[in-house]
Amino acid sequence: MIVIDGGITSPKGFKAAGIGAGIKKDKLDMAVIYSELPAKVAAAYTQNKARAAPIEVMMRDNSKVLRAFVINSGNANALTGETGIADARRMQQLLAEQMGLDKKEVGVASTGVIGRFLPMDLVAKGIMQACKELDRSVEANIDTAKAIMTTDTKMKSVACQVNLRDGTLVTVAGIAKGSGMISPAMRIMHATTLSFVTTDARLERDPSVQWQHIMDSSFNVINVDGDQSTNDISVIMANGAAGGAPADDDPAFWEAVLWVAKSLAKAVAIDGEGATKLIEVLVTGAKDEQEARVAARSIVASNLVKAAVFGADPNFGRILAALGNSGSDFDISKVRLRLSNGKTVSLFERGTPLIVPGSIEENVARNILKEKRILIELDLGVGVGRGEAWGCDLSYEYVKINASYTT
Amino acid sequence: MIVIDGGITSPKGFKAAGIGAGIKKDKLDMAVIYSELPAKVAAAYTQNKARAAPIEVMMRDNSKVLRAFVINSGNANALTGETGIADARRMQQLLAEQMGLDKKEVGVASTGVIGRFLPMDLVAKGIMQACKELDRSVEANIDTAKAIMTTDTKMKSVACQVNLRDGTLVTVAGIAKGSGMISPAMRIMHATTLSFVTTDARLERDPSVQWQHIMDSSFNVINVDGDQSTNDISVIMANGAAGGAPADDDPAFWEAVLWVAKSLAKAVAIDGEGATKLIEVLVTGAKDEQEARVAARSIVASNLVKAAVFGADPNFGRILAALGNSGSDFDISKVRLRLSNGKTVSLFERGTPLIVPGSIEENVARNILKEKRILIELDLGVGVGRGEAWGCDLSYEYVKINASYTT
Repeated sequence: MIVIDGGITSPKGFKAAGIGAGIKKDKLDMAVIYSELPAKVAAAYTQNKARAAPIEVMMRDNSKVLRAFVINSGNANALTGETGIADARRMQQLLAEQMGLDKKEVGVASTGVIGRFLPMDLVAKGIMQACKELDRSVEANIDTAKAIMTTDTKMKSVACQVNLRDGTLVTVAGIAKGSGMISPAMRIMHATTLSFVTTDARLERDPSVQWQHIMDSSFNVINVDGDQSTNDISVIMANGAAGGAPADDDPAFWEAVLWVAKSLAKAVAIDGEGATKLIEVLVTGAKDEQEARVAARSIVASNLVKAAVFGADPNFGRILAALGNSGSDFDISKVRLRLSNGKTVSLFERGTPLIVPGSIEENVARNILKEKRILIELDLGVGVGRGEAWGCDLSYEYVKINASYTT
Repeated sequence: MIVIDGGITSPKGFKAAGIGAGIKKDKLDMAVIYSELPAKVAAAYTQNKARAAPIEVMMRDNSKVLRAFVINSGNANALTGETGIADARRMQQLLAEQMGLDKKEVGVASTGVIGRFLPMDLVAKGIMQACKELDRSVEANIDTAKAIMTTDTKMKSVACQVNLRDGTLVTVAGIAKGSGMISPAMRIMHATTLSFVTTDARLERDPSVQWQHIMDSSFNVINVDGDQSTNDISVIMANGAAGGAPADDDPAFWEAVLWVAKSLAKAVAIDGEGATKLIEVLVTGAKDEQEARVAARSIVASNLVKAAVFGADPNFGRILAALGNSGSDFDISKVRLRLSNGKTVSLFERGTPLIVPGSIEENVARNILKEKRILIELDLGVGVGRGEAWGCDLSYEYVKINASYTT
């Protein structure tokens, strides 16, 4: 697998555009992704019961093949009742008309402020403009990635290529957004981080099972603030334009997809609202993989752990307290806890703290916590389960951003 | 029921003391509560699996009758292994020797920094001093309430009196601490908020069932930061010194106990780390009482709701998003959401937002959110279940306090 410079239109047969429709002031806020061939899709949606209108529409349609996707930022079209549903349907219809598709072949997603109606006149004009600008250029890729952003400070876009067993070269690429309200727990059929993965690999079967598995090891283990969004969605579109043998059972292909999903998920974590540091948690020795992930996620989700990391305070008890709340099984007499970033320091072993106030070790821990990327390694001592999670610290800036989001 | 000026020694037969043992610098940090008669007890403990040594000791002893309780602040004696267990046992032993009791008649609790060993020489001297200062005076009450505080800015102490059916006057009083790491889910036998309720009522049966019920409507519905502590404990001690008929089945008695527990729980919520406002959530129309409480607690637990309240931002979509994450059943087309504080404003009804940006209603909502106490009323439209929860906003100060707690 090689990482390439490129974006969502690097796989063959995909075009995209990102434009400013005026939903946000002077910013890109509407994107269209278009595939020249019908693309097999799997989508994972938020499990929040107060799901947004576009999520509701996508779940009802449950389309297994799509040709295009329309996405707006600046307004989530969530908690907008029947009007919202009609508006989401209208977005599908407008894109379908413009591109000569059936509206069932069009996906729709929104992100932004909750509880406000979409300005449909601007949306309609925006869709027309985006369709005119559909392109495979570097600029089109960048504009598309930017148009789905809300409080994100960086665009999230990756691409890679892999050779299948039969020698076919396939490309997998993705874009994502997400900064706040990030605690996804997306389930196929029933994922506000948005992510869109395109590939020209040929799939013959419904990729839902693999997509769920990939979600559980990527987007579903990140946490910015513990609030699962009304609008999370994560979609893979495979249009087969690369030709060659089907990739359904090709490990190299799924490895490439997993790499794209993980890269995007980590990019969302590190760009969490107000984040100054990336927190990576690796749990080993758990009863099983699931418990390892649950434990790891419980730690990156703890406000107290996040605030301690922000302040570079080696208050490791909070890490173990978060473990204790996760519900995962562990044997405290065998638990081992280490912090690392180049250097490594052991904080806890054999049921006992290894660092005392004022010690050299405490100082090493403090210095590690001052880095931009901190790895917390925790062995639970009860099995061979292994899992990761990624999150960010809790800063003054997070509070500032969220104390005045709508104003 | 009448509220009285008083504290934990207002019920007959109780003495208490709060002293400075030197665990914290120049602050009260050790308390002893003593009953002249054996007191029937029920205790609820944290469900965090990384429970502190004193919690472990109390759960193993499972004593149904206690004569005294020793509590220290400044050090949680949590994640301290076998040394911690031995230290907690030693605290029981020292108090028992001093007062001529069996060590099984002594309860023990700690709160403060996690993962550090107790300075047992200071603890031992502190216990001796506290025993000498045991008293029923107003000062003793105040010192006891202060000695269990950590980042609390206010002491929490209440007392009330009630006449039982047979005319007996009983007194119920309580003290509590708790400011951060507050998201209790205490269970009898298996509850870092500490709370101690004393009463001179006579109980003939184990009060555990009633105590669990009271926990579920008081401490278990408050949330400061979503992190359940390693050290939560909530204890009622009933010594029967008031005489008269048993209070086991007397509704007036339990009403008084519930009032004390709720008053202390709200006091903990409003004194949450960095809190500038009390958020009260009242959920009605839920499937049942349990779902109403779960929904209410999910809303006060949301970082995004907390930050919006801090910033007086009427971003009501976050409230409904938190409802959507709670798992509670609701019918969005029937959900009604109101904010009030003297004035009331309806935010959402019939599946649709009622306020639009720049409207008069939005301004009313903003003004309500500027108050010190905000009531969020939510009707779920599916049943008759009713439940409350209390929490505080998320401020810069919360981040500041927790970015440098150990330093």
